[in-house]
Amino acid sequence: IVSAEFDSSRRRFPPIADLAAGVMRGERALLGRALTLVESTRADDRALAEELLERLLPATGKALRVGLTGVPGVGKSTFLESLGSMLTAQGLRVAVLAIDPSSSLSGGSILGDKTRMPRLAVDPLAFVRPSPTRGTLGGVARRTRETILLCEAAGYDVIFVETVGVGQSEALVASMVDTVLLLLLPGGGDELQGIKRGILEQVDIVAVNKADGGGETAARRARVEYESGLKLIRPALAEWSPPVLICSGATGAFLPELWQEVLAHRALLEKSGTLATRRRQQSRDWLWAEIEGHLLEAFRAHPAVASRLSAIEAEVEAGRAMAPRSAAELIALFREGSR
Amino acid sequence: IVSAEFDSSRRRFPPIADLAAGVMRGERALLGRALTLVESTRADDRALAEELLERLLPATGKALRVGLTGVPGVGKSTFLESLGSMLTAQGLRVAVLAIDPSSSLSGGSILGDKTRMPRLAVDPLAFVRPSPTRGTLGGVARRTRETILLCEAAGYDVIFVETVGVGQSEALVASMVDTVLLLLLPGGGDELQGIKRGILEQVDIVAVNKADGGGETAARRARVEYESGLKLIRPALAEWSPPVLICSGATGAFLPELWQEVLAHRALLEKSGTLATRRRQQSRDWLWAEIEGHLLEAFRAHPAVASRLSAIEAEVEAGRAMAPRSAAELIALFREGSR
Repeated sequence: IVSAEFDSSRRRFPPIADLAAGVMRGERALLGRALTLVESTRADDRALAEELLERLLPATGKALRVGLTGVPGVGKSTFLESLGSMLTAQGLRVAVLAIDPSSSLSGGSILGDKTRMPRLAVDPLAFVRPSPTRGTLGGVARRTRETILLCEAAGYDVIFVETVGVGQSEALVASMVDTVLLLLLPGGGDELQGIKRGILEQVDIVAVNKADGGGETAARRARVEYESGLKLIRPALAEWSPPVLICSGATGAFLPELWQEVLAHRALLEKSGTLATRRRQQSRDWLWAEIEGHLLEAFRAHPAVASRLSAIEAEVEAGRAMAPRSAAELIALFREGSR
Repeated sequence: IVSAEFDSSRRRFPPIADLAAGVMRGERALLGRALTLVESTRADDRALAEELLERLLPATGKALRVGLTGVPGVGKSTFLESLGSMLTAQGLRVAVLAIDPSSSLSGGSILGDKTRMPRLAVDPLAFVRPSPTRGTLGGVARRTRETILLCEAAGYDVIFVETVGVGQSEALVASMVDTVLLLLLPGGGDELQGIKRGILEQVDIVAVNKADGGGETAARRARVEYESGLKLIRPALAEWSPPVLICSGATGAFLPELWQEVLAHRALLEKSGTLATRRRQQSRDWLWAEIEGHLLEAFRAHPAVASRLSAIEAEVEAGRAMAPRSAAELIALFREGSR
């Protein structure tokens, strides 16, 4: 059976060397196949995906990795459509990815619809990847990290990672990009309350969206309010106080100014050596996240542990057993059984 | 050798049944011995500590657990000395613990000195426990959680857990108390920048300290500024907007008002059912923290893993190897060796 599975994997995907070469030549069809491979949860596919990633590794690391966050309804898709088109008009190759851990609960990804960005979807210099619609938080994080690397290897210059703006997706996105952009509505101070805990201090650039038509005055007013609010937040980088701008995803107004700030932030990261430090740290964190994920997976899958786990959890939650002893009991089952 | 170690444990500590009974009678000397036992890192002591905790479990859970945080120099010790004395004057039994993960780096705890609170230190209704001076973050967290439970079993009505106001100690303290109190200096908005990422949203009550003598005007002015800044932060509990008060640890001014807010917060937690939910969640999180800690410890201690780990970490950090495959390689070493 094992060899049959390997055969079916081999049949479903081109040989890894060909896949890697095609990705590095920027062939969209092969990039698509490669992404399907890293998103697969089949064990045999995973081994191939790891081989592919190792082959592509030397071609990664060169893109501008930009995270985009903001509450649902702030206009992230329209913003990316405009900003992405502006960049492809400059000859840059742009990829748009989405990180959407909530989709595993809702049963379907709200970011899965390519028609959210109709211009980018048909732009030969752009690549829009809908978010996969299943998986744990750890699984979604792994796939997004790997997708970033695949797009880099395929020669994309700018990679946007968009979040749904809820749950833990913002914290995750900050752990895999260089610059985090927060879009806000011109609603004023109350809106910052919707932003997840901790994310405000991981934000590098803030933009008040919908500064178009009659909205520009409101956006300018909101900018002042956000500026004073954000002064109270410790910035991620001592040398960089996150600027607060206005922009319009709908009309494209002020997007050139905003992009200048992204480039200025990137230049500072490079000059100060923070880019290299941050990416080393991200790689190390990723390694440990993978290790922890594997260990917990093996732990939960262990038959002796699995048969006792929910009863013990219930005892601990109800205060009838103490965490240290209960953990020790489960660990003993795990270690004994795997000897 | 094993039996000799057990013997020495038995000699160093009273029988666990006697120790448990003594703690539950509130005998300070036996509480002190019990704390020494849970703080011990010896494997044989750990087994005894777990047995002790299981015995004490039914007597735990009844105290008001209050976390206190704020930057170094804000006056936390003086504040606790005054507030603690006010509460013991009302007949309440008060314990003061410290969580100080930084001490393992500095080589000595800055919170270790009982003379910081000379009145409480000799108050028969108070118990001041210096922070242990060694250990990892996980170890410090475990000991603090266990110390809280021991003090509860010993009949303390209010348990303050003080942080050093740096590093990850605030996030930890929020995971083990019911109410988090943030002390601020009358310095104004800039000071909030010193508060660690995420902690602002875990704060339930804010007090501007040093509202005494000429400082009261400045404290009142700062309160207004903090209030407008904190409006931008999403509170931990939808039904509770963290109040911003002024107080003086030195003179005791406004401490009764502040304590009323602590009691009001507690009443809301109980009435809404949040207290029970939160404690269940804390117990569950503690169980998983223990499990993860044990798994990672076993992983790092595994000979085959230990001999490869730093080389692989360096490869991943330098971008010469990819996290997923490197993690899989280490996990294979771990699982093979323990079979």
